Amino acid sequence: MAPDDATARRLTVVDHALRLFAEKGYEATTVDEIAEAAGISRRTFFRQFRSKEDVVFADHESQLAQARAYLDAAQGDPWDAVLEAVVAVFERFTQWRELAARRYQVVRQVPTLREREIVTVFRYERLFTDYLRTRLRGESDLALVQFTAAVTATHNYLLRRMVRGESDASPADLRAALATVPRGDAERPAGVPSDQLVVAVFPRDMPSRQVADLLQRRLDTL
Amino acid sequence: MAPDDATARRLTVVDHALRLFAEKGYEATTVDEIAEAAGISRRTFFRQFRSKEDVVFADHESQLAQARAYLDAAQGDPWDAVLEAVVAVFERFTQWRELAARRYQVVRQVPTLREREIVTVFRYERLFTDYLRTRLRGESDLALVQFTAAVTATHNYLLRRMVRGESDASPADLRAALATVPRGDAERPAGVPSDQLVVAVFPRDMPSRQVADLLQRRLDTL
Repeated sequence: MAPDDATARRLTVVDHALRLFAEKGYEATTVDEIAEAAGISRRTFFRQFRSKEDVVFADHESQLAQARAYLDAAQGDPWDAVLEAVVAVFERFTQWRELAARRYQVVRQVPTLREREIVTVFRYERLFTDYLRTRLRGESDLALVQFTAAVTATHNYLLRRMVRGESDASPADLRAALATVPRGDAERPAGVPSDQLVVAVFPRDMPSRQVADLLQRRLDTL
Repeated sequence: MAPDDATARRLTVVDHALRLFAEKGYEATTVDEIAEAAGISRRTFFRQFRSKEDVVFADHESQLAQARAYLDAAQGDPWDAVLEAVVAVFERFTQWRELAARRYQVVRQVPTLREREIVTVFRYERLFTDYLRTRLRGESDLALVQFTAAVTATHNYLLRRMVRGESDASPADLRAALATVPRGDAERPAGVPSDQLVVAVFPRDMPSRQVADLLQRRLDTL
């Protein structure tokens, strides 16, 4: 999914800004310096961004918009659609990896930016929860919330490792990690009542005959 | 766990402040008005809180400190310790329910407070992740992150329902909801290999004999 021209122009400014922040410090860098480095006027800068802080997270706005558009158009299983949206966000960050890595270096040194990042990240979680609520009306609300929290945390964990240079996680790695996140009522541990499914958990080394007997007795007395 | 005297005195100020914020609006309420309502001097106010904004979240500081102290002293299974710490936080919020409900009304109307709340909530998640990292050195880091994200989201979901007056969730309800959150590698869905446990999922209305047979055949060919 290639960003459109306006997005590409904005990302060029973001790139210059983050380079300056990394070199001179975030506080010490002025909007005029960013505009000059990016070859635009101060006025153009303020048409593209509301503030110096906004530049740091501008690509998140574009990411969120693309994720929302993807979900709005998505057909099929809503849980899968969220996972695909998350993987697509990750793929785009992979393409703009240098930018994401530079931001990481800047953000970790400025507490107000760190806080803004936490708030920004939370917007993905809320987007996914809102989407699932609309599409899965019968599902337990708590299950949706647990799912989106774990899914978003998984994405952020692999992204953080990537921008720190600690791993080369691919979108396929993310997809595999996301597949372990439980969806709704389908995977409650044994003992928790559910209308539709029963989940049994037992040690692998229990003899199969014993498992079958125990389970049958348990089911017959439920 | 009863808050100590200093905490109790601070919470009295918080209570007055939130009442004033709810009545007059957050922006329109001054520190002098809060101090007067709480029967303290402006100077005492600023010994207890750094700013007007800090008052809104003062009990979170006390909660975080108590959760940290609990975990530092905890023996036994670290996953369980995190769940117990979360339930203890919830129990304290239950005791100060009016305060939490009043804060909810104020925070939802002021975007900067809403953002500050998101950041505050994230500190619990980080506290739990850091604790698990220290105690479970062999565990997959991603598993810890998924666990604390889902656990924190579960707590916040039930707390939000409580302060909105939508449910009367008890600490026991929270404990039951938390028990469904998977821990590390131990509870992967069926089909994913694990050294120790087998998880089987089947429809509730499948006859128990059929479940037992299917399961035994499946286990015997694993």
